[in-house]
Amino acid sequence: MEIEVAVAKASKWATGESGDTLEMVERPHGGLSFVLVDGQRSGRAAKAISNLVARKAIREMAEGVRDGAAARAAHDYLYTYKGGKVSATLNIVSVDLDSGTIILSRNSRCPIVVITPDDELRLLDTPSEPVGTRKGTKPQITELPLEEGTAVVVFTDGLEAAGARSSCVFDIPAAIQELAIAGEVNAQQLADRLLQRALDLDNGRPRDDISVLVLRIVDRAGDGVRRMTLRLPV
Amino acid sequence: MEIEVAVAKASKWATGESGDTLEMVERPHGGLSFVLVDGQRSGRAAKAISNLVARKAIREMAEGVRDGAAARAAHDYLYTYKGGKVSATLNIVSVDLDSGTIILSRNSRCPIVVITPDDELRLLDTPSEPVGTRKGTKPQITELPLEEGTAVVVFTDGLEAAGARSSCVFDIPAAIQELAIAGEVNAQQLADRLLQRALDLDNGRPRDDISVLVLRIVDRAGDGVRRMTLRLPV
Repeated sequence: MEIEVAVAKASKWATGESGDTLEMVERPHGGLSFVLVDGQRSGRAAKAISNLVARKAIREMAEGVRDGAAARAAHDYLYTYKGGKVSATLNIVSVDLDSGTIILSRNSRCPIVVITPDDELRLLDTPSEPVGTRKGTKPQITELPLEEGTAVVVFTDGLEAAGARSSCVFDIPAAIQELAIAGEVNAQQLADRLLQRALDLDNGRPRDDISVLVLRIVDRAGDGVRRMTLRLPV
Repeated sequence: MEIEVAVAKASKWATGESGDTLEMVERPHGGLSFVLVDGQRSGRAAKAISNLVARKAIREMAEGVRDGAAARAAHDYLYTYKGGKVSATLNIVSVDLDSGTIILSRNSRCPIVVITPDDELRLLDTPSEPVGTRKGTKPQITELPLEEGTAVVVFTDGLEAAGARSSCVFDIPAAIQELAIAGEVNAQQLADRLLQRALDLDNGRPRDDISVLVLRIVDRAGDGVRRMTLRLPV
């Protein structure tokens, strides 16, 4: 069995820097966590906020703090630091080899899309608040078994907003259904194609920062080697 | 221009967990840093040490602390925490978009191999101590311009030790020269092939944890999208 994680990230048109931050951290009890934060607004101000929130979350998680507590800590930190005036969405996707589960922590109005091993599409869309502005904000936590055939798609609101200016609004669950369930795509292809559709809807000029993270559990006899690749246009 | 970074990581034969830790962190002023730590010995004890050192380094760097100071802080932290009795190698590879350079920080007896844009192979092998055991230990810092054709290969000592039991000792610079300068390989292929040669020399049963990190700057008209892929066998 092998876990594939892929991320594709584009910046709002004509702003150099994405306001979204993605961090990865090894879990001290085994496994990995990915933290995806979208800071309010765009550009440098958003980047500073998303960096602050992501940093707090990974610092906690690197010390073995559980996901839900790390998300609460990130909220409390931003709320205290900015006096409740600035918000950010926060998603944590963890592969926990200790418990043998995927842990999804969500502080965002965007849903998380899950494909189950029997090809059912499930939306995690319980009402959930971004961190930073409302005292005592809690994450929505979902735990899934590490099972072959499971896929998880997490995204920031730039993906949902794509094409909102034109008549065609991006139906993300339908796109995921079509791409992932009908076709045989790996995590990177799924992330890339979702992002590409959003960019197409915005005529290549995204109106907001867009980040897509895909996790997929596949039936592959691994060689025991962990691999990571990163491509960074400059 | 695009920056490719690839990592391949294998565990010592018959130990579940690699004692090497790799972490990635976004630089608050733009860019990314990769921290690779090899804790003394192997298995859980080594993992705990490498995690401790990597965590300290990324915590500093996430707050904007410069690479050399982060490496010194990681040393001081381990030296203080373990009373100078435990060592770890520490390499930091940073893509600093603010200064437009690659910053290499090295606390390891293993060299870093650099391929320059004119296909010269350069060994960064100034004497350098691992962190943790000798008071005041400093990193060797090298800064390179972000120039197309540059490649950097960083590895932990498990790669050098491969095959040491048999008669064939792994000549890493020669292998890099052959693979990277003669052939057209991307960062992931270069990391994979170096690791594969080491595994072959050890008959598929590595005597130590092995990690290889390759950074390559290529001439590719990017689409402005950052991409990351990770594969984790479980």
